[in-house]
Amino acid sequence: MSATLVPEHRAADFIASSYRPGRDEAGLETIEKAADRVLEETGIRFMDDPQTIDMLKQAGGVASGDVVRLDGAELRRIVRRHAPEKFLLRGRNPARDTTVGERAPPVFAPIYGAPNVVLDNGTRVAGSRRIYGDLVAAAHAAPGLTNTGQMICVMEDVAEDRRPLEMLLAHLTHSDKPLMGSIASPAAAEAVIDLTAAAVGRPARGGECNLLHLINATPPLTYWPNPLKCLRAIAMKGEASMVSSYMMMGATAPVTVAGALIQGYAEVLAGLALAQLWRPGSPVVMGILAYPFDMRRMLPNFGDPASQLVQFYAAELGRRLGVPVRGDGAITSAKVDDAQSGAEGGRVLSAAVASGAHFILHAAGWLEQGRTVSLEKFRRDAAALAELGHGRPADLPAQLDRGIEMEIRGRLARA
Amino acid sequence: MSATLVPEHRAADFIASSYRPGRDEAGLETIEKAADRVLEETGIRFMDDPQTIDMLKQAGGVASGDVVRLDGAELRRIVRRHAPEKFLLRGRNPARDTTVGERAPPVFAPIYGAPNVVLDNGTRVAGSRRIYGDLVAAAHAAPGLTNTGQMICVMEDVAEDRRPLEMLLAHLTHSDKPLMGSIASPAAAEAVIDLTAAAVGRPARGGECNLLHLINATPPLTYWPNPLKCLRAIAMKGEASMVSSYMMMGATAPVTVAGALIQGYAEVLAGLALAQLWRPGSPVVMGILAYPFDMRRMLPNFGDPASQLVQFYAAELGRRLGVPVRGDGAITSAKVDDAQSGAEGGRVLSAAVASGAHFILHAAGWLEQGRTVSLEKFRRDAAALAELGHGRPADLPAQLDRGIEMEIRGRLARA
Repeated sequence: MSATLVPEHRAADFIASSYRPGRDEAGLETIEKAADRVLEETGIRFMDDPQTIDMLKQAGGVASGDVVRLDGAELRRIVRRHAPEKFLLRGRNPARDTTVGERAPPVFAPIYGAPNVVLDNGTRVAGSRRIYGDLVAAAHAAPGLTNTGQMICVMEDVAEDRRPLEMLLAHLTHSDKPLMGSIASPAAAEAVIDLTAAAVGRPARGGECNLLHLINATPPLTYWPNPLKCLRAIAMKGEASMVSSYMMMGATAPVTVAGALIQGYAEVLAGLALAQLWRPGSPVVMGILAYPFDMRRMLPNFGDPASQLVQFYAAELGRRLGVPVRGDGAITSAKVDDAQSGAEGGRVLSAAVASGAHFILHAAGWLEQGRTVSLEKFRRDAAALAELGHGRPADLPAQLDRGIEMEIRGRLARA
Repeated sequence: MSATLVPEHRAADFIASSYRPGRDEAGLETIEKAADRVLEETGIRFMDDPQTIDMLKQAGGVASGDVVRLDGAELRRIVRRHAPEKFLLRGRNPARDTTVGERAPPVFAPIYGAPNVVLDNGTRVAGSRRIYGDLVAAAHAAPGLTNTGQMICVMEDVAEDRRPLEMLLAHLTHSDKPLMGSIASPAAAEAVIDLTAAAVGRPARGGECNLLHLINATPPLTYWPNPLKCLRAIAMKGEASMVSSYMMMGATAPVTVAGALIQGYAEVLAGLALAQLWRPGSPVVMGILAYPFDMRRMLPNFGDPASQLVQFYAAELGRRLGVPVRGDGAITSAKVDDAQSGAEGGRVLSAAVASGAHFILHAAGWLEQGRTVSLEKFRRDAAALAELGHGRPADLPAQLDRGIEMEIRGRLARA
């Protein structure tokens, strides 16, 4: 028998040291430099949005068609110079305002985007307007959830173009906590921003805003038109964007932790800099998330240690950029809330909190790769978050101003 | 409504910053200094072991009865001067040797001390010799478990004085991975040390040993006689001790994270220094573990975020001392392996790995506050550890030297 190190041992050595990337500034710099090479040699595709491409050219970008090759060091300078380290996300109730960023406890928001709902009797139904209201009320009542999020489930019984205002109405009537904005379209984003500003009823101030928006890159190395147009509209309004790359390792990103980090960092760096170019000082959050893709089931695997490593490094890359960082909550591949669900979710949530993430999305209700929000799991996750000691005991939301409610209902009636 | 910070918010601020104690050297120093005050003003009770008290007097301790008031700064100097930062824990198969300490992947060992076993048909039975062999074989076969541990279940069908050698025989015949030593008595510890040394068959060498022993303080601020005598016997033989304080916050320790850390650090610092006083250079591991005590059920709660915080700080206190650190695996209060079990265990394990712990005990099989080892959970935990990328694929253990097997069987026959 030989005492020679086998490849497994070397992989393990890598993992052991890498859980503390804060002590690995050289490794972080290697990732940044490799991302710079990707940005300079391959570039990023910005689909169907000439305004974005023109703006990037002013920052030294070299465009060929919709692909722009970029200077990573310059993008970092732009972000470091202008993006705030933290900002105040305001709710209708000022006592529920939350700081997003350095030295503040993480903000937790529910699952985002689930088409299906599992009710307490085990029935699986399509999301609806009625259920949506119940979910917002549950998020409001949960002390651990400090943000009621956005699109907790899809309102399948409401026409697609009416959903942004229907969701807004639900958030504003069932809760006075901060929420997330709409990215259905730039116009929807703007409408929700204006109505929320009226409901919050406090003047715009530097370092403060009312909505955080989820702006996704489309890995590999692409932004679709709608996120680009929304990012611009949101920045111009002085509201916040969480620029995220949600990668499937081995499918839409390299299969290795380092490779995924390099690609994800290149993608989000471009988006974060764009927000600053549109409006210097725009509040932003950085999200680099990567989950291994299971080639047998053609689905991502959640709760894998590789994604924990990505989270730990992403948090440090964000710290070096000087922007708040995103993490994920108790997400899982499990179809029911069993030991697999608990273990996978517990691991993802722990990594997010321990990494120092400032905004943690999908923090309650997630089942089945995020295709389902489970009411039972929503309560279990919320109870676990309450244990974390964040947030405040629930009380009834302040009544929404009647004029604003009538304005939203009127717009919906005319739509 | 008032925007004043409520106590919940302040607690949350503390938690958010504290997950990264590596950036809080001032906080760590405060804990050390507070522990020094506990050691100097209150002291530690060393029960019924005059040799230990005499030795501590030579290190400046002031004894009154069995309580010794100690100089914490001096204890730290002793540990920093003599205790190794890492050591090699050898198995019968040199390819399965594991390094315990800085820059090595964490070593994972199964649950330790369960009186009950849940079989695959759901039956709950007392631990037995036959089941013990099966558990060692399962630990050997699991790539993620790099140490087969000790007392995976209690051999209730074997007389208590025969158990140390029966367990040793099971570990040596069903596995060639490293294992943990016996602390049934100093004589049992020495017998197991000598027989294991013969089975490993490699000469004693500095920085290398064959067994790690679990030496528990008995919080608050007490060591019972047997652990003290075992610690001495083990150190004199050049073998390793994992000096641990396993606290119940609110019962055997202060209810706060900071208070538990102060008490636990005072306790283990005394034990770690003792090992060095008995034999400078003794390999040691430091364990400070604290779990909130549920006053309604009179049981500790596992998986609580407070214990994750304790783990993160303990790892940093160990780093400042220059010794390897212990963590816990997927431990839980759950009675069955359900979502609660998964979530609690996933959180404890994640905190242990992310903290940089070097030896992770109770890493497979734990259910029901550790009173039960579940075969099903053993396999699930082992599969999750294999995913972590540590360890090597299983193959059959090397045959135990026939002479050593006969020697152990002979001693058991004469007992």
